Amino acid sequence: MPAFRRVRGMRDFLPEEAKVMKYIESNARRIAQIYGYKEIITPVVESFELLAAKAGEEVRKRMYAFKDLGGRKVALRPEFTASVARLVATTLRNEPKPMRLFCVGSLYRYDEPQQGRFREFWQSNYELMGSSKPEADAEIIMVTNSLMKAVGLKNFVLKVGHIGVLRAILSQEEVDDKFQNEIMQLMDKKRYDDAFGLVEEIGVSEKCLATLRKLVRVKGGKVFEVLKRMEKQVDEYESATSAVRNLQEILELVSESKEKIDINVEAGFARGLEYYTGMIFEPYVPEMEIALGGGGRYDKLIELFGGEPTPAVGVALGLDRIMLAMQKQKTLLKTDEEKRVIVIPIKEVLKGEALKISRMLRDANMLVEVEVMGRKVTKALEDADRRKLDYAIIVGERELKEGAVVIRNLKRREQRTVKIERMVKMIKG
Amino acid sequence: MPAFRRVRGMRDFLPEEAKVMKYIESNARRIAQIYGYKEIITPVVESFELLAAKAGEEVRKRMYAFKDLGGRKVALRPEFTASVARLVATTLRNEPKPMRLFCVGSLYRYDEPQQGRFREFWQSNYELMGSSKPEADAEIIMVTNSLMKAVGLKNFVLKVGHIGVLRAILSQEEVDDKFQNEIMQLMDKKRYDDAFGLVEEIGVSEKCLATLRKLVRVKGGKVFEVLKRMEKQVDEYESATSAVRNLQEILELVSESKEKIDINVEAGFARGLEYYTGMIFEPYVPEMEIALGGGGRYDKLIELFGGEPTPAVGVALGLDRIMLAMQKQKTLLKTDEEKRVIVIPIKEVLKGEALKISRMLRDANMLVEVEVMGRKVTKALEDADRRKLDYAIIVGERELKEGAVVIRNLKRREQRTVKIERMVKMIKG
Repeated sequence: MPAFRRVRGMRDFLPEEAKVMKYIESNARRIAQIYGYKEIITPVVESFELLAAKAGEEVRKRMYAFKDLGGRKVALRPEFTASVARLVATTLRNEPKPMRLFCVGSLYRYDEPQQGRFREFWQSNYELMGSSKPEADAEIIMVTNSLMKAVGLKNFVLKVGHIGVLRAILSQEEVDDKFQNEIMQLMDKKRYDDAFGLVEEIGVSEKCLATLRKLVRVKGGKVFEVLKRMEKQVDEYESATSAVRNLQEILELVSESKEKIDINVEAGFARGLEYYTGMIFEPYVPEMEIALGGGGRYDKLIELFGGEPTPAVGVALGLDRIMLAMQKQKTLLKTDEEKRVIVIPIKEVLKGEALKISRMLRDANMLVEVEVMGRKVTKALEDADRRKLDYAIIVGERELKEGAVVIRNLKRREQRTVKIERMVKMIKG
Repeated sequence: MPAFRRVRGMRDFLPEEAKVMKYIESNARRIAQIYGYKEIITPVVESFELLAAKAGEEVRKRMYAFKDLGGRKVALRPEFTASVARLVATTLRNEPKPMRLFCVGSLYRYDEPQQGRFREFWQSNYELMGSSKPEADAEIIMVTNSLMKAVGLKNFVLKVGHIGVLRAILSQEEVDDKFQNEIMQLMDKKRYDDAFGLVEEIGVSEKCLATLRKLVRVKGGKVFEVLKRMEKQVDEYESATSAVRNLQEILELVSESKEKIDINVEAGFARGLEYYTGMIFEPYVPEMEIALGGGGRYDKLIELFGGEPTPAVGVALGLDRIMLAMQKQKTLLKTDEEKRVIVIPIKEVLKGEALKISRMLRDANMLVEVEVMGRKVTKALEDADRRKLDYAIIVGERELKEGAVVIRNLKRREQRTVKIERMVKMIKG
């Protein structure tokens, strides 16, 4: 039979890569804990209807959708927010606010595979439900910053905008939601000419088009100066002005936290998902063009999903993209290196004793392998050397009679006979 | 819009349940580490062909199978072993043996939902590749025992058998694999009458049928006595006799490890998956009828998947079933309870200061929430009490002028003013 293959766009993580992924995941979980976010687990398979409801056309047409054996139209989740919103609109409906929720897991989109983009990918997701205050937005920005810092990334920047500014201008010009969504998606892809073309086609005032054209050029420079330029551009659009002020309040709070965060405000910044209503942001490292995640405020979503009106702000961070960024920055993992031990019986008949000794070491919380290939001691030691283990415990009859074993320090190439009861202490030092 | 619903058979884990699941997962990962199993991550979506190849009819027809947007026939993995075997047959083909691999994640089967059985479920999976020795089988049994013990389960029993005994008898009678698989599946479901009916229909010797009928009654009692009875029953079947001896060797090694493991040998025990070739086992707790997992030896699989001939033994443990067992046994989690703190600004203008104080506490690795609802201090404190937080830090103008904050011990209902630089020490004690 020919070897089976992995499905295109899917990915295996071998031990070295899996270690990094799990390192990022455990950091993400710790950040959730220190900020008070409770972990939940939602299913990979959700109803198509739920996932399609507010995902945006882009995501919707690239979902892994199918009918299950009961004829239900389902899909693999392309993001977490719809599932979290479903929970908040149903099971968690009556929970007191604020509600801070965290989840981490795999997501699925049928995109064209490319560097850092697979059809199965991982995210950690933080959602703060129930607060419309700028300090909630500030908190989500700080959570993002904390995770990037915790995994050891350097020189990262948060690109920040406010979807409410762009939408307020279009709304004041009576552009309907459907067109607004299309325009946002074009702007998300930096297809500004197409976006402006569409705006023109719909028929808006000269002033509106001019304002939008100027806005997308407002970026770069010091945060509060850019905000001032933004405010000036939109001064004839009342709601847009208060959106800029909202963004200013958020960023002032972030600044007052004295957390060092590198922020680039871009007035023309939009995000593809349709549900954002306020501040939006994406973290970047200089080594990569794609964002490591994205977040923002979405105050209407829970209500649209049948729940109570619930202001909300959240962020999703791509674990595999963070991994790629760490590889590019050659980030070292901060983990304790524990000693690794192999237990080798000298003879067949001592295999049970070797298992017993390995059990004793593991009971003392040590990392222990046991020789299971029936190899001679020299062969087994060669293999242990090749694999850079730290200690070998050689179980021989003569030593056993005296309640002892031989401990070999594989790095120093020294060995000595040690009583079994002193074995753990000897290795742990 | 009406509230969206979760898909039937799928499941949400709310914070209290998710905490238990993640606790089991982290114990499973630690067990992998102390036994030297390296974690890998394989995709949820695999080719249907791969997953169907050796899954057994039962599992095959209950897979979540569909065509992806590229027209590939794919399915959601119903188990891990096929994916691990794929990797070992391809990418990891030339890795030195033994190879110890661990994975943990979600799996999918369209079964009828019932207590402890969902259509999305979680397993931790340990596979030891490259050794045909009984110490490898013994190790997998010990791994299983260690995990059950680590999460705090009590009174669990491992049901152990040897598929090689049953298959050897049928093979000697020239029953082909297809029928053998059917018979094993009927026996797995304890439909012994149907199994024997099928055996009779195929046409085997009187002796064979009598042997099988007697074998399924060989169970209960002391391990090595049951093994003797087994050996006696099969004494006219050479390969079956050596299979019993293999099981005896494995269980002697387990016994010599001096790990206290409660084992029930059952001669008629079979497992539904088609790929097992040797020792098989399942852990049970007295409170539940369903197994918490299952494992065994499968020496032909890697080869069948196009790899080098590779003896292998492994086990899959159901995390959600372990969770259910823990609930039934009222198992307590062994986790450190860390103090939880909330930071509350007295006035709007102090929100930035509150964020700064919360950041300082988190930099000291503390669990800190910040008031984001704009509530007055009394309201926020009431909420903190209800949620059983440990400390509230009240940020007021007067105290700030002196570089201090008010720390309130919510349990003792005491408060005092403390300099900011002494805040962390004060709470950590």
